Amino acid sequence: MKLTILGCYSATPKVNTNPTAQILEIKNHTFLIDCGEGTQVELRRNKVKFSRVKHVFISHLHGDHYFGLAGLISTFNLLTREADLHIYAPKGLKEVITMQMKLSNSWTKYQLVFHELSSKSSELIYEDDKVEVHTIPLDHRIYTNGFLFKEKIGERKLDMNAVLNADIDVVYYRKLKQGGDVLDNQGNVIANTLVTKDPIPSKSYAFCSDTLYSESIIPIIKEVDVLYHESTFIEKNEALAKTTKHSTAKQAAMIAKKANVGQLILGHYSTRYDSISEFKTEAKTIYPNVELSRDGKIFEF
Amino acid sequence: MKLTILGCYSATPKVNTNPTAQILEIKNHTFLIDCGEGTQVELRRNKVKFSRVKHVFISHLHGDHYFGLAGLISTFNLLTREADLHIYAPKGLKEVITMQMKLSNSWTKYQLVFHELSSKSSELIYEDDKVEVHTIPLDHRIYTNGFLFKEKIGERKLDMNAVLNADIDVVYYRKLKQGGDVLDNQGNVIANTLVTKDPIPSKSYAFCSDTLYSESIIPIIKEVDVLYHESTFIEKNEALAKTTKHSTAKQAAMIAKKANVGQLILGHYSTRYDSISEFKTEAKTIYPNVELSRDGKIFEF
Repeated sequence: MKLTILGCYSATPKVNTNPTAQILEIKNHTFLIDCGEGTQVELRRNKVKFSRVKHVFISHLHGDHYFGLAGLISTFNLLTREADLHIYAPKGLKEVITMQMKLSNSWTKYQLVFHELSSKSSELIYEDDKVEVHTIPLDHRIYTNGFLFKEKIGERKLDMNAVLNADIDVVYYRKLKQGGDVLDNQGNVIANTLVTKDPIPSKSYAFCSDTLYSESIIPIIKEVDVLYHESTFIEKNEALAKTTKHSTAKQAAMIAKKANVGQLILGHYSTRYDSISEFKTEAKTIYPNVELSRDGKIFEF
Repeated sequence: MKLTILGCYSATPKVNTNPTAQILEIKNHTFLIDCGEGTQVELRRNKVKFSRVKHVFISHLHGDHYFGLAGLISTFNLLTREADLHIYAPKGLKEVITMQMKLSNSWTKYQLVFHELSSKSSELIYEDDKVEVHTIPLDHRIYTNGFLFKEKIGERKLDMNAVLNADIDVVYYRKLKQGGDVLDNQGNVIANTLVTKDPIPSKSYAFCSDTLYSESIIPIIKEVDVLYHESTFIEKNEALAKTTKHSTAKQAAMIAKKANVGQLILGHYSTRYDSISEFKTEAKTIYPNVELSRDGKIFEF
C-alpha cells in the first residue's frame, strides 16, 4: 500500500496548505479519499494519473472535504474520460453535483455512479477479490464516515522445490494455492502445508476524519496496520475540539493505543498553529509510533 | 484603478495555472470578478484582504468561473465576517450555494445578498456616487455576462488662486464644484469655467469572458480605457473557438480595434499551448496596445 497525502489541513486556507485529500494505492486500485478544493491540481503536482482514479470516497459534506470534486468531475470530462467514476458519499452530494452540471449544461460523457451513504452502522461499501472497504461511522457536526480499507488474505504461495519433489500434477496447483490437500502422481495424499507457504499478510488502512474522540470506532479499526486519525487541535485547545466535534493529537493517540494499531498518522491540522511538530510530541506521550502527515508526503507500508 | 489577475487560464488545470478570477480596485472598492477553484488561496497569495471584498461578479456558471465561491463564502464565515457579501451572478447560483450550506449545516453569520441575473440586454446592476457596473451580454454556450466598470465623472476642481482673486464666499464652493456659476461678494456673476478646472477623467474597464467573437458588444464597450477580452485560442484553432463559443487572440484584437479601446488585455488561455507569447504576437497584427494577463500580474491604469 502507498498513501499519498495531497492535503492535510482543515478549513481556512493559507498559501501552501491544502484541505483534506489522499490517494491510497492498494492492490492495483488508486482510491481518492476526500477531495477538498484544489485537489485536481494536487493530483497533478503529485503526478497521479487522472485515469487511474475510479473510486472516490467522501467522508462528509463540509466544503474542505469535497469542494474540489465538482471541478475534478468536470476536468475528467474535458479530458474525454470514458471510464466510470464511482463516488461513495453522504446522501445529498448527488443532488449538488447534478445541479451544478445542469446549470453548466455540461453532462459527463462517462458514467458517474453515486453510492449514497446514510447508515449509522459500519457497512461494507466496496468489495472485489482483493480488497474490501467498510465505513467507520464518526461523531462530527454532520453525518460523517471514515473508511477502512482492507486487503483480503491472498492465496498460499507454492513452494516450487517441494511441489516438484512431491511429483504433483500442475492441475492441482490452483487447489494448493487455495489451501487444499492434493494427490501426487502415485495417488498419495500430500498435506498442503508441506508444499506451500503462508500468503503475504494482508494490510489495512483506516481513515478517520473528522471526529470527536469516540471509542465506538475501536472495534472497527482494531489492529489496523495504519490509522490516520484527525488531530485538528492540540491539548491546550481541547475545549474547542469538543465544541467543534474534532479531536486533539493526544486523543488520536489514545484511540491508536486502545485499538492497538501498527502506526498512527496525524492530520487535519487547524491552520492556527505556526508549527505542527507539537502534534507529534503530544501524541508520542501516549503512543510511540506516530507520524505527521504533510502535503505531498508519501507513506509506504 | 488597479487590476490584479488571480487566474487567467481556462478549464483544465495544470500545476501553477489558475482558472479565472480578478480583483478590480476602483474608487475604494475591491471587486472580485469570477471565482474559479482555488481563488481564496490566490487572494491570500496576492495579499488581498478578505474583508475588503464586498461584491463578487460571476460571469457564468461554468465551473472554472465559480467553483471557488462556495469555499470563499465558507472561509469568510469561519473568519467571523460580519459585513454583507453581494453576489451578482446568473440565476441558479443562489440555489447551488444554498444547497451546499444546507448540506454542511453551516449557514453564514453574515448576510449573503444574491443579485441573480437573467436579462439578455445590458443592464445597470450596481451604482453608487462614484461607480457604475453594467452587464455586457456575451455569446457563450450558456447564459454569460461580461461586466463594464465605470468611474463616474467627478466634481470640477477649484482653481484656488482664481477663486480667491474673484472674492467668492466659501459657501459657493460646493456649487462651483458641481459646475454652477456663482456671485462674488460684490454681487457680480462669475462664470464657472473662470475659476474651476476640468475633473480628473473617469476611467472604465470592461471584462469579457467567455464569448464567441461578437460585434454586438461594441456599442457597450466603446472607448473603454481597458478591455479584458478572452482569447482561449490562437487563429490556427479558430474552428475550435467557434464550436466551443470562444474567441481567438486575433478576434479579441478585432473587437478592441473596432471598439477603439485604450488597451487590450488577453486571457482565459487554453492550457494546450506551451507558451502564451503567440497570443500577443497574433493580436498585435490587428491592434497595437496589447498586454498578456498572467496569474499574479498587476495592471494599474
